[in-house]
Formats: sequence, structure tokens, C-alpha cells
Amino acid sequence: MNYHVNEHIKNTVRVFPMQNRYGMHRYDMNENPEGLPKEFVDSVLKEITPEFLAIYPEPDRFLHKYAKFIGAAYENVLTTNGSDMAIRYLLETFGEVGKEVVTVAPSFEMYWVNCSILGYKHVPVAYEPDLTIKIENILNAINDNTRIVVLLNPNNPVGNVYTEEELRQVIARAKEVGAIVIVDEAYHYFYPNTFIEHALKDENVVVLRTFSKLFSLAACRLGVIISNPEIIHYVKNARLTFDANSIALLFAERILDHPEMVEELIRIENEGKAYTLEELRKKGYECRDCRGNFIFVKPHHNAKEVAERLEKEKQVLVHPYGNELLKDDIRVSVGSKEAMKIFLDAFFEVDAQ
Amino acid sequence: MNYHVNEHIKNTVRVFPMQNRYGMHRYDMNENPEGLPKEFVDSVLKEITPEFLAIYPEPDRFLHKYAKFIGAAYENVLTTNGSDMAIRYLLETFGEVGKEVVTVAPSFEMYWVNCSILGYKHVPVAYEPDLTIKIENILNAINDNTRIVVLLNPNNPVGNVYTEEELRQVIARAKEVGAIVIVDEAYHYFYPNTFIEHALKDENVVVLRTFSKLFSLAACRLGVIISNPEIIHYVKNARLTFDANSIALLFAERILDHPEMVEELIRIENEGKAYTLEELRKKGYECRDCRGNFIFVKPHHNAKEVAERLEKEKQVLVHPYGNELLKDDIRVSVGSKEAMKIFLDAFFEVDAQ
Repeated sequence: MNYHVNEHIKNTVRVFPMQNRYGMHRYDMNENPEGLPKEFVDSVLKEITPEFLAIYPEPDRFLHKYAKFIGAAYENVLTTNGSDMAIRYLLETFGEVGKEVVTVAPSFEMYWVNCSILGYKHVPVAYEPDLTIKIENILNAINDNTRIVVLLNPNNPVGNVYTEEELRQVIARAKEVGAIVIVDEAYHYFYPNTFIEHALKDENVVVLRTFSKLFSLAACRLGVIISNPEIIHYVKNARLTFDANSIALLFAERILDHPEMVEELIRIENEGKAYTLEELRKKGYECRDCRGNFIFVKPHHNAKEVAERLEKEKQVLVHPYGNELLKDDIRVSVGSKEAMKIFLDAFFEVDAQ
Repeated sequence: MNYHVNEHIKNTVRVFPMQNRYGMHRYDMNENPEGLPKEFVDSVLKEITPEFLAIYPEPDRFLHKYAKFIGAAYENVLTTNGSDMAIRYLLETFGEVGKEVVTVAPSFEMYWVNCSILGYKHVPVAYEPDLTIKIENILNAINDNTRIVVLLNPNNPVGNVYTEEELRQVIARAKEVGAIVIVDEAYHYFYPNTFIEHALKDENVVVLRTFSKLFSLAACRLGVIISNPEIIHYVKNARLTFDANSIALLFAERILDHPEMVEELIRIENEGKAYTLEELRKKGYECRDCRGNFIFVKPHHNAKEVAERLEKEKQVLVHPYGNELLKDDIRVSVGSKEAMKIFLDAFFEVDAQ
């Protein structure tokens, strides 16, 4: 090879998601299995013209509306091509080669994949054997080399949440060492607590939101970074000229126009989750409400084998785990009661045998 | 400020495109002023369901089709969130802090903006006073510190093109110093020559294509990186998990299903360009076919003032230049004859006064 390749990128090992999921029953990636109401989708699609598609995206109208929606100002918000891009921008802007990023692990993998790409040191904080997280362990992991601390609230996959007091401790400790705190609220609306107020008022706090989960637009790619104007300014310096696409922005704007639809989405998903947990527990299954649009359940048989059989025999996708702590569980995304009946029928049949 | 900010990002100065262009006549950003045929757009929109929107994007089906379309293999191609993202990935993967990126300048600004973000040194190669580029000047700008050489073919904004022999010289010189060569073919189809063969066969050549220009999908964000499997592998290591969105991929796939529509788009835009140049020259204007979907014209009055008056008085957007070499020209995107009549009427009226 006769050209230079960035050594961190060269040494990064990537695994990309499976393809051809469209024909399957999908409970593996915390998408909404069914999506937004059809009348709503059709009414938004009617606004899309050839001219609209030919024009470069304009994020500002959406940003003004979104800022109002969350009780913030335009200067507090920034759209990205999914949280995927938000995480990358934040790590690029506030991280440093050879320095440290603290996260609980296992958790959302893109935090440490991006550490590998960028040449940062990922410092994982372990769960306790009972799947709780000791805030002391996070605080103790922060030192002078820490540039970024990441809290998922609730934490995917286990569903742990942080109290106001715990967050304050992390923010204070991060401040001491010159680190920013990213609070990833991907599963907000399933878990109503938010730390947006800290993102708006503290000097070193960022909240991430996504339109892929409750808002059911994973295909469109839309994330929002919420913070104080200084942090937003720096991230803007690092961003692409055109980031989120116009279709994502249009759908997102129309969702904000319909708060009653948002309420109904929350109701339907919570109903589906309660129903799923109840049906599983009735049959004696140990399960856990993970406080997002997903749950854990321990199959009677080997979790990985059950997941494989669900895929092969029932075209049902769920998420098993390789690591020791979670190897007996499968993670199941939840949707409406109707969507969950399909999962439950398949699961009871496969796990009974 | 009590947190670390990457110094290169901190010191980068950004200017983002104007907003509220939807109500205007747009000839300023080399979009198609009208877009794709309405029947085509409507037929593709019919395929979009709530479920489709809720599922994370899958690029592979499009990539297989696109590879076939350009006579390459799946391993030769990668989708990105517009060329914007492609440029960033390539610079991240093959560049190095403090080392050099050679481009002609003025040209597409995101090459040097990304150099600033990433802490690379941008080495600009100047045009001759007659707006030609001497290939010797590019070759002489390449040295042991060069990591990336960028050729836009044709070059935006002036429309210079490179011969096969000139490209070979640049590739050979780049190889000597361990640099890759990016050939940006954003305006392919308006200018039919391509260097894809080099991207597939040479060790250090990458070709960029976009769906924002002829394919009229700037709103959707879709770029393609074309190179040998080794280069594609490294760039994949650096990419987001989800990059191009599903709507962009769907529209792009359907465009490839309709080569007759692509031919017709080329015909319409070339007709519009020929018509515009002819009408301008009839009135004694000096103008230049820039070999993309855009032309240069020298207004009788001050170029910047004409551009400002076109915007204010006629809601017509064109692109003037600040730099000495191009300050007497405006760049005008071209579309159909009908679209260009709107520009010409406005321009003749404003520039006459």
C-alpha cells in the first residue's frame, strides 16, 4: 500500500447491521415495528414535490419549531443525520487523541466505535452483577485525562436511570477535569424524565434526542443536539454544510404540529409494552421493563439459540447478547399490542420446544 | 470555558447557506431549478409506507444496482450523506494533521473548510489569469507532505477539465509521495468524460459522484464513493453506522431503473444551457460554458450589484464571487429552457438599467 491511512481508522474493526430486514418482523433494533399513522404519512408525502427534492435542505424552520417545542431557543439546538452523526460531531469537537471517554458498558456501541475511529481511549464502567450501576464507579472513572462522559438515560440496554443528584455529581466532577457530559435521551417519551434543563443552563452538558424511536423515522435519519449556545457554536464549526435531509426535516416538523399524535404514539407503545410484560410473566418468564421501547426477557432455552430459531422459523428478529452479564436475555423492541402479539405467538412456540 | 475544544474546530470559521430559498427562482447552487418529472416522483412516493420510514436504512440493494450501473462491483462503491460526507470521510481516512491537501482554488469550498476542521494544511493551486490551470503547477504543489490531491473534473466554478495524460501525471506523482487522488465528478453527465476506470484499477484514485446535480435530489443527500476495494474498506471503517437515508436510496434506485429518464434529463438541461448561452451572446454578453449545469456570464453592470438586485427585485438567486479573478462574473445554474426564460427575462431587465 502506497498511501497514508489514518492508523486509528485502519485498526478499527466494524460490523454493520444485517440487510433485508424489510420482510421480517423486527424487534431487534428498537424501531417502531409498525410506524406512524398511515393518514399522517400520506398527508406529509403529498407536500413533497420534484422542486422540493431538488433544493438543498434548510434546517432553520424546523429548528425554530423544535426549540419552541422543548422550551429552548434556536441557538440551543442543532439537527444531525441521526444521533449517529451527533455522537461523531461531539466526540470530534470535545475529545482529544489519546484522551479518555467514559461510558457505562455494555451500552450503545457507537460511543466506543467512534473512540476507536478517532484514537480516543474508551473507559468502560462495569455494571454490578445485579445490573445496577454505582454512580461512584462513574465518578471514579473520571480523571484529568477525561474529555467526555456519556450517560444514556435510560441506559440501553439495561434501562438504568440516573437521579438528578447523580447527574449533578457527574457534571460537577466533569467540570473539575474540563470534560463535557453527554446525556443521551434516545428513549425519551418512553421514560418521561429529562435533563434538558441542565443542557440549557450548565456550561458542559449536552442532551441528545432522536426521531428514530418514538417518532418512528429511523429511515429518515434525524437527531437533535441540545445545549448552550457556546457548545452549539463549536459543534456547528465541525458540521457538514448539509446534514439532515429535507424529508426528515419535513416529517419532523409535521410531527411537532400534531402533539395529539405524539400522545397517542406514547399510549400505544406503553400499552404494547405492558401487555407484553404481562403475557410473559403469566407464563412464568422473568423479564425487565428497560424504560425504553424495549424489554429484556430470559427464555427457558439458550437465548442465542432462541433468537436464531425465531429468525429462521418465524422471521422474527430479536437482539441476543454475547457478553457474560446479558447472555441469558434477549432484548425485544416493543410496539402496539397487535405488533407484540406476533412476537409473543412466535416466542412461546419456539421457546416451548 | 471549562472544557476542552479541539483547536482546529474552534478556529474554523463557517458560513452556512442562506435559508428561505423555496419561494425564490434558484440559479445559485447548481440545483435543477425544476426537479425530476412529477409522474416519476409521485410513483416513487407511493412506495413509501409508515413501516418503511420506521426501518433503519439498508444501502446494499442500491449499492449492488449502482455498481452494475457504472460497470463496477459492490466492493467498489459506498454511499454517503451527500458528497459533503464523502469528502469528510476521505479527508479523515487518508489525511494527516499538519500535512497537506492540494486543490485548485477557488473551487468547491468544502475541501478547504474540512482541512481547517481537521487541522490539515490546504495548498491552493492558482488559476492562470486567463482562467486555465497549468498541470505543472499542480504537480509542483505535490511534495512529501502531500496526503491528498483533489481534482474536480470539470472544475467548479470555471469548468476546466483534465486530459487522460494530465490525470496520469498527477496519479504517478501522488503515488511517489504516498498521496491519494480524489477526482470529484459531481458534474458528470453534463460533461461525459469519466475517470472511473482509474478509480477501479489504480491503487490510489477515488471518484466521487452525487445525486444532487443531474439526478436532482439535493434535498435527499446522496453521494457515492467509487474506488478499489481496499480504499473502500478503509473508508467504511470511518463511516457512521447509518449514513444515507432510505428515501434517498429508494429514489436513487428508481432513477437507475429508468435510464431513458436520465437521457431525457441530460437532453433538457443541455438544451436549456445552449439556449441560455445563445440568448446571452445575441445580446453581446461574454459568457462561458462551464461544462457542468452552470455557466458564467459577465453582466454589463457590477456583478455583485446585479446579483443583489436580481434577488431583491426579481426573487432570482445567482452566485457572484468575491475574489479578484472572478469578480466580474456571475455563475448561473441551468435547467430547462422554460426555467431559463425566467432567469433571462429578469437578468436582461435588471442589467439593462
